[in-house]
Amino acid sequence: MSTYVVGHQNPDTDSICAALTYANLKQELGADVEAIRVGKINAETEFILDEFDVDEPELVEEVTADDQVILVDHNEKSQAVEGIEEAEILEIIDHHRIGDVETGNPIYFRNEPVGCTSTIVTKLYQENDVEISDKMAGLLLSAILSDTVIFRSPTCTETDKEIAEMLAEQLGVDIKNYGVRMFKAGSVVKKLEPKELVTNDYKEYQFAGDTIGVGQIEVMDVDEVDGIKDDILASIEELVEENDYKFLVLLVTDILAEGSLLMVSDSGIEVVENAFDVTVENNEVYLDDVLSRKKQVIPVLSDYLTQ
Amino acid sequence: MSTYVVGHQNPDTDSICAALTYANLKQELGADVEAIRVGKINAETEFILDEFDVDEPELVEEVTADDQVILVDHNEKSQAVEGIEEAEILEIIDHHRIGDVETGNPIYFRNEPVGCTSTIVTKLYQENDVEISDKMAGLLLSAILSDTVIFRSPTCTETDKEIAEMLAEQLGVDIKNYGVRMFKAGSVVKKLEPKELVTNDYKEYQFAGDTIGVGQIEVMDVDEVDGIKDDILASIEELVEENDYKFLVLLVTDILAEGSLLMVSDSGIEVVENAFDVTVENNEVYLDDVLSRKKQVIPVLSDYLTQ
Repeated sequence: MSTYVVGHQNPDTDSICAALTYANLKQELGADVEAIRVGKINAETEFILDEFDVDEPELVEEVTADDQVILVDHNEKSQAVEGIEEAEILEIIDHHRIGDVETGNPIYFRNEPVGCTSTIVTKLYQENDVEISDKMAGLLLSAILSDTVIFRSPTCTETDKEIAEMLAEQLGVDIKNYGVRMFKAGSVVKKLEPKELVTNDYKEYQFAGDTIGVGQIEVMDVDEVDGIKDDILASIEELVEENDYKFLVLLVTDILAEGSLLMVSDSGIEVVENAFDVTVENNEVYLDDVLSRKKQVIPVLSDYLTQ
Repeated sequence: MSTYVVGHQNPDTDSICAALTYANLKQELGADVEAIRVGKINAETEFILDEFDVDEPELVEEVTADDQVILVDHNEKSQAVEGIEEAEILEIIDHHRIGDVETGNPIYFRNEPVGCTSTIVTKLYQENDVEISDKMAGLLLSAILSDTVIFRSPTCTETDKEIAEMLAEQLGVDIKNYGVRMFKAGSVVKKLEPKELVTNDYKEYQFAGDTIGVGQIEVMDVDEVDGIKDDILASIEELVEENDYKFLVLLVTDILAEGSLLMVSDSGIEVVENAFDVTVENNEVYLDDVLSRKKQVIPVLSDYLTQ
């Protein structure tokens, strides 16, 4: 039997860093747990692990009835490690909407409306009076800067900022400098194939019985995708077909301009036009001030599709 | 628009006291919230409110799309105030299994595997550096003694004990003396009709598409129900029929002997025999060491019915 601390599928930086740091906290408190990941580490996370000299968590693609899991950064079954239905869920630390995970027994479930799971993990170090090592502080800071897009995301709260500033001070790191270096290291456009671009930071959602897919890539300039839009749209249609989605949306988020180009499969054009009250042309529409999938896109789609 | 702090239907002491105290904490922190109840206050809670001179929360039987709610002591829709599907859920403070509540946005959800919601509320006073008044300390202490059956329930943790002892010290109250007075004041057998006995502390659960009902009464001696068992069984069958339940279980919990007489409708005899590996005679079986519906009965039924 193993007890795993695990983030969501297609792990982003917060899912990896929150798993590593929360596992570290539990270990410091005497628990026998191990951080794992359920997918490939992205370029941004690779940069961070290298920067703070931390080994990547082991890849575990499926858990079994013998395993116990602590979920970080997600609480929806469709986003969790394969086999989650069999395993025992021990705890959940998250900052998303409350999803469909149910348990037979009472568990520790700590969900807070902050910008990053690692913000909550930092609070848990403090509440448990456990000192944060520089390595762990580096991971926590990086995850907060990543999830809040250096405090620019509307999901970012004062708590995220205060905690990030405290961690940066411990490390002697300049937040803006480091954040921009981190995001540049993570820019995915040139590294990935069009289909990988769509699924690199990707989640499925269930609404009224239908499944939709929502991917997001962050760029320093939305022009970065200009030359490959046709290939991206072809990949989007391919994924819709393969997975029998109602539709698929890709957000190309421009960090500096603070807006997102929303690209959508043919089957989702009408929903996007009605839900956001916009006109979609060539399967795309630019949404000013939209940076957060979780806070600005999913609630709008959810409201429209479940009304 | 109102913002309500509300416990579950058929409110027990924890649901009333956690609503009152958490509303008080939120008010101290500057929020405009109001504690409400969704059902009749039981005799034990009445004793407590009288003892600490606190007004009962207002009865609100239904919430609307204009209302915001903070759920305490439950996180299952079937146990919540009418209209919960319409209202906006702002927060959840609970100590039960993770149920079926879903939200569109991230919320504060604090669920801990402790014996009582009021234990968590006390921690939240401490985490927010808010002083606990004697009135609120009285409600918190009473709820902990009630939910943990004066520390006898297997759901009781060291945290519950430590916090109850701290509150008792603040109040200068002898825990055992006060607890026994409180439970005696709350003894329901002589006050209620048989059908009310079944539904006095009562919850519905959904398993594999079927609904079951599980009531619990606590007595100082299980003999208290000897003369009225036939009437209780008739009420049980009536409730099964009226509500189209798969079956209904009533736990008559003997606080001093630390066991429960489980009474069950005809339709549930086979499930109870198989799930608990016991023999049911005259629709009843005495279960040694079983005190907790949540921890010792629901998981057993859940495992059996969803296997």
